[in-house]
Amino acid sequence: MQRPSGRAPNQLRDIKITRNFTCHAEGSVLVDFGATRVICTASVEAGVPRFLRGSGSGWVTAEYGMLPRSTGSRMGREAARGKQGGRTVEIQRLIGRSLRAAIDLKKLGEHTITIDCDVIQADGGTRTAAITGACVALVDALNYLQRKKLIVQDPLRQLIGSVSVGVYQGVPVLDLDYPEDSSADTDMNVVMGEDGGLIEVQGTAEGAPFQREELNAMLDLAAAGVSELIGLQKQALAEG
Amino acid sequence: MQRPSGRAPNQLRDIKITRNFTCHAEGSVLVDFGATRVICTASVEAGVPRFLRGSGSGWVTAEYGMLPRSTGSRMGREAARGKQGGRTVEIQRLIGRSLRAAIDLKKLGEHTITIDCDVIQADGGTRTAAITGACVALVDALNYLQRKKLIVQDPLRQLIGSVSVGVYQGVPVLDLDYPEDSSADTDMNVVMGEDGGLIEVQGTAEGAPFQREELNAMLDLAAAGVSELIGLQKQALAEG
Amino acid sequence: MQRPSGRAPNQLRDIKITRNFTCHAEGSVLVDFGATRVICTASVEAGVPRFLRGSGSGWVTAEYGMLPRSTGSRMGREAARGKQGGRTVEIQRLIGRSLRAAIDLKKLGEHTITIDCDVIQADGGTRTAAITGACVALVDALNYLQRKKLIVQDPLRQLIGSVSVGVYQGVPVLDLDYPEDSSADTDMNVVMGEDGGLIEVQGTAEGAPFQREELNAMLDLAAAGVSELIGLQKQALAEG
Amino acid sequence: MQRPSGRAPNQLRDIKITRNFTCHAEGSVLVDFGATRVICTASVEAGVPRFLRGSGSGWVTAEYGMLPRSTGSRMGREAARGKQGGRTVEIQRLIGRSLRAAIDLKKLGEHTITIDCDVIQADGGTRTAAITGACVALVDALNYLQRKKLIVQDPLRQLIGSVSVGVYQGVPVLDLDYPEDSSADTDMNVVMGEDGGLIEVQGTAEGAPFQREELNAMLDLAAAGVSELIGLQKQALAEG
Amino acid sequence: MQRPSGRAPNQLRDIKITRNFTCHAEGSVLVDFGATRVICTASVEAGVPRFLRGSGSGWVTAEYGMLPRSTGSRMGREAARGKQGGRTVEIQRLIGRSLRAAIDLKKLGEHTITIDCDVIQADGGTRTAAITGACVALVDALNYLQRKKLIVQDPLRQLIGSVSVGVYQGVPVLDLDYPEDSSADTDMNVVMGEDGGLIEVQGTAEGAPFQREELNAMLDLAAAGVSELIGLQKQALAEG
Amino acid sequence: MQRPSGRAPNQLRDIKITRNFTCHAEGSVLVDFGATRVICTASVEAGVPRFLRGSGSGWVTAEYGMLPRSTGSRMGREAARGKQGGRTVEIQRLIGRSLRAAIDLKKLGEHTITIDCDVIQADGGTRTAAITGACVALVDALNYLQRKKLIVQDPLRQLIGSVSVGVYQGVPVLDLDYPEDSSADTDMNVVMGEDGGLIEVQGTAEGAPFQREELNAMLDLAAAGVSELIGLQKQALAEG
Repeated sequence: MQRPSGRAPNQLRDIKITRNFTCHAEGSVLVDFGATRVICTASVEAGVPRFLRGSGSGWVTAEYGMLPRSTGSRMGREAARGKQGGRTVEIQRLIGRSLRAAIDLKKLGEHTITIDCDVIQADGGTRTAAITGACVALVDALNYLQRKKLIVQDPLRQLIGSVSVGVYQGVPVLDLDYPEDSSADTDMNVVMGEDGGLIEVQGTAEGAPFQREELNAMLDLAAAGVSELIGLQKQALAEG
Repeated sequence: MQRPSGRAPNQLRDIKITRNFTCHAEGSVLVDFGATRVICTASVEAGVPRFLRGSGSGWVTAEYGMLPRSTGSRMGREAARGKQGGRTVEIQRLIGRSLRAAIDLKKLGEHTITIDCDVIQADGGTRTAAITGACVALVDALNYLQRKKLIVQDPLRQLIGSVSVGVYQGVPVLDLDYPEDSSADTDMNVVMGEDGGLIEVQGTAEGAPFQREELNAMLDLAAAGVSELIGLQKQALAEG
Repeated sequence: MQRPSGRAPNQLRDIKITRNFTCHAEGSVLVDFGATRVICTASVEAGVPRFLRGSGSGWVTAEYGMLPRSTGSRMGREAARGKQGGRTVEIQRLIGRSLRAAIDLKKLGEHTITIDCDVIQADGGTRTAAITGACVALVDALNYLQRKKLIVQDPLRQLIGSVSVGVYQGVPVLDLDYPEDSSADTDMNVVMGEDGGLIEVQGTAEGAPFQREELNAMLDLAAAGVSELIGLQKQALAEG
Repeated sequence: MQRPSGRAPNQLRDIKITRNFTCHAEGSVLVDFGATRVICTASVEAGVPRFLRGSGSGWVTAEYGMLPRSTGSRMGREAARGKQGGRTVEIQRLIGRSLRAAIDLKKLGEHTITIDCDVIQADGGTRTAAITGACVALVDALNYLQRKKLIVQDPLRQLIGSVSVGVYQGVPVLDLDYPEDSSADTDMNVVMGEDGGLIEVQGTAEGAPFQREELNAMLDLAAAGVSELIGLQKQALAEG
Repeated sequence: MQRPSGRAPNQLRDIKITRNFTCHAEGSVLVDFGATRVICTASVEAGVPRFLRGSGSGWVTAEYGMLPRSTGSRMGREAARGKQGGRTVEIQRLIGRSLRAAIDLKKLGEHTITIDCDVIQADGGTRTAAITGACVALVDALNYLQRKKLIVQDPLRQLIGSVSVGVYQGVPVLDLDYPEDSSADTDMNVVMGEDGGLIEVQGTAEGAPFQREELNAMLDLAAAGVSELIGLQKQALAEG
Repeated sequence: MQRPSGRAPNQLRDIKITRNFTCHAEGSVLVDFGATRVICTASVEAGVPRFLRGSGSGWVTAEYGMLPRSTGSRMGREAARGKQGGRTVEIQRLIGRSLRAAIDLKKLGEHTITIDCDVIQADGGTRTAAITGACVALVDALNYLQRKKLIVQDPLRQLIGSVSVGVYQGVPVLDLDYPEDSSADTDMNVVMGEDGGLIEVQGTAEGAPFQREELNAMLDLAAAGVSELIGLQKQALAEG
């Protein structure tokens, strides 16, 4: 088996994490997983949604979008069509849930952090890139809150990272790009924490059902991949 | 650990599968997972969505809804609010994907089968009950197509079933009801085939991340549970 | 003239009123008018819409929906299309108005009761079945409020029932089913109270205009039919 | 009993029917029922909705709207709110049904006539004024089609008119204005043809139920009122 | 060059400004620019949008619509389509901005005046007719507020008027009607105050770009035209 | 008068035009007007909108959006709110009109070019930056069509550029940034061609009306500014 990109089965694409990509947001990251490029911003607002008011607890939520021509052929703009598609909704719910697992909402106080993940160029794995980049933007926003003395304790429990794994031509592989993604037998997105614990596992049989051994092999790849990604997050956060 | 319902950790709720529940649909099933009750209908239409026209291949898609007072407090009606919520969209995509894995779309010819899953009473696990019931409604619709000589070969690859598993008070348990679901540490929905292969695995850490051993224990429970469910599907299909 | 069902012109279909059909709502009724089956639930909430706040008066409102495959061919799901159709809106306004006529809103205090009427199987006369079943669900909700000491006096003025009448092949008939409804010359829905008073009369000439004598004959049929329906409501309410 | 306007119980308001009110439409009428003023235009288009294509039959449909400040306090603009309210939908369905009863759709050939009824000033009875004015606009559009040789036979079966009746302070009265309408016990809208036949009867008990004798008295008033209105339609059509 | 209407290049169409056109609004004007006819109403409400609350300042906003058959062929009703088109939005923003320039919002206190401009017949220049008529309706509403002692000082800074200018067959012309508008090389809408100052200038090259000299010639025409329109506004306001 | 940025009144911000910013589109440009940054992509599709089918003529249209946190405080995502705001609609119509003026649609054949302008960072003047960048993306798309032999002749008439001008503290200035824009007395957006002709002039008095001399001074500034911008477009297009 030869991956279209020539990568080894357990090899990530070139990962870049660029902090302070735009100037207004409390956290702003451009993340590249190879040719997949996502702008992740974290916006801090005072107050929380109604169901949390008076609870002393904060909230983290996410929105996801793709620029119309981030893909090979132009997709209709969701704002113009007047609604977000099912895939968009599914992805933004996943991002929000994952990031809430990364922090202690109690320590956030009654603040809301909204994470916007906007794909400017897509080549597979946009949701995993988004989560990985968003976590760094989130940390920058948490640092902002502490620096401004708006919160006292650091709400961060641990860094989280995410990567896709799949079975491509019978072989488990890490971090699928679009050519692999579109012909893989199985596709799985995994979100893990710095401590190696699982936060989200979403596996789908695209063709035939998959077996427990395949699941295990994919999870092994994901664990190593996320560990590498968290190393890169730490490196990016250490700079500047 | 004592489950609120008094069930053993590996015990399903009372499952009932009632075929021919309504009279117009080609397949119509009322499925009960304990107090969770879902009407699943399968509607056959000639023709396929644009992206499949001329391909000779059929399509299966699903829609999901909850009656406004299927739950403890009334939810706004999605038709009145003018849009389906994120959870609804996520669930109906899952149901559709799972059912497509159950059949050979080529053998379906250019027909579309739409599965409607409407929850009339909810007590946790509505999506897994829906998939399990919908599979039986789908088989009835496939039989209808064969009986009417609209297709020649049976498109069914295998029956599929679905069940939730979770970690409740530190113990892996099968088929969570609402009291368990709302306080579980981890929640996972599994779709499997008659052959024991995995079709969908969606696990979420509600509190702390979960470990590989917990994942494995949950998958073992799910495998046994789905196997039992498929037995009940076969029994229902054997009657009348 | 022979009715398709073989019924006499002044004969209702088999009517069944099943209370406590679902477990969460304060009132929950499954009503059958022959093959027409409607789930009617009554949900009690504290508070009233803005235009009544501070008035001391309560409110009753209704929503109506049909499951997509309650009919012979599948209708698009209104939640997916993003709006309720004109017929739906017309019917739910009729149900709400009729039920408000059944009770003294002042005695309800500042509570809102929302009636959901969801058709699971349609064979003509869904709106009249809905009103008839909803009235029973409403009574159960009023009893709940009294039992919980949330209100002091019974707001019920009188039971109301509803039935359709029409002119089929030149003969006035009671309680039209779908085959009659779709070919009747005139179609009229009547809502009446226990005291024989008229609450709503909605008659439509489908073909030629109708004459006063026909109107009178139809109203006579409706009066007898509603009286019978109210008898059945009382019987259902007397049980358990 | 004294009517607020000083009219006799069986007296219509001042009725004016102004043809050719705007210049572009095939039929354009400004109708005044006292201070209620409605612009009714009939627009002819080639072709019919999908369900009639190839049938040789035409279609008549109606849309209704109120200018935001046609009423005492400004209502939100439906176009800005992004949907038509329930009352609007109910009224435009009534107008369309009534006008279709006035003509032989077969003789219309595959043309669609769209009737727009836009209320510029409201003082009760907008829907009955709209139907009465729209019928004249429709006749002008039918004459246009014949003049242009687009159809051969006149599709008009008979003129139709509409008026409201009600029980105001215990007395049946004709053609309610807003002060009467807002405090009437019973409100009924009647559409009748030139031949005296009933096309639509929609009666609602606003307070207590109403009795058969009241219904009959109201229908008598309506019959005389519509007859007078049809006389005025004929007079307007005879001019110019 | 001969204008289709036979007018001189610097000649306005027949302008009519009819005050008190409808009876409910605080200001109600029917304005005619030739065959272009627009109903402009001004509605006063206590309170201001959220962003002005507590500021002591008032607000003026505008909405614009065209009756479906105000034009040569029927346009879909925006309320039925569920959204306002781009042109509508653009025009109502222009009207609102222009009118806010006419008054001192501070002197208006926390009141909102909503201007509705509804085109009942269109023949080019609907937005300029709307602004010109709306200004008169606004003045009537301001007078109402003073008469009712709801405000102390007159918020009016100056009257404003608006007219279109363009280059038609190489010649700059004033107040284009539809036949000119649809074939002009350049189209410009100008809003000016009584003092001759410019409030809005919106010029568009429909074909070839236009030159500074053309711009200047058009602005000269507009200045004379608006001055004439303001004279007519004053005359209308002096009556009654 | 001192500009907040320290620029001379006739000085543009730092302008950067980066071609091939993303990889999928036929034209993709990142344009910077100082801290205002806009991604402009041009997407080519075969076919034209219905109103042009069979005409042999092509079409250019534009869509505009701002990432939610492109601004100082986060704006709601238009896709999530389910509609594009009035400002968005106004801007995208302006961009489309301007670009259509740049080319000969006949020579484009029946192709549609959709320009997406997505603001990733906003500091005033986003629409003028968008037009200036979009023109370069459009040229790249036209070159693509010629290179692929899909069209024979170059449809480009001339390059166009756009810049804002205004009166800030009494002094006419070029290319306003956000601090200037939000406190300027007058704000004007100008689109001009390479030949110095005017394509769009949109001037608004924010406070007091503006005079002809101010208009002239602003247009002089704009002419020089656009000429400089077109020089930079040419330079960008000359590079590889």
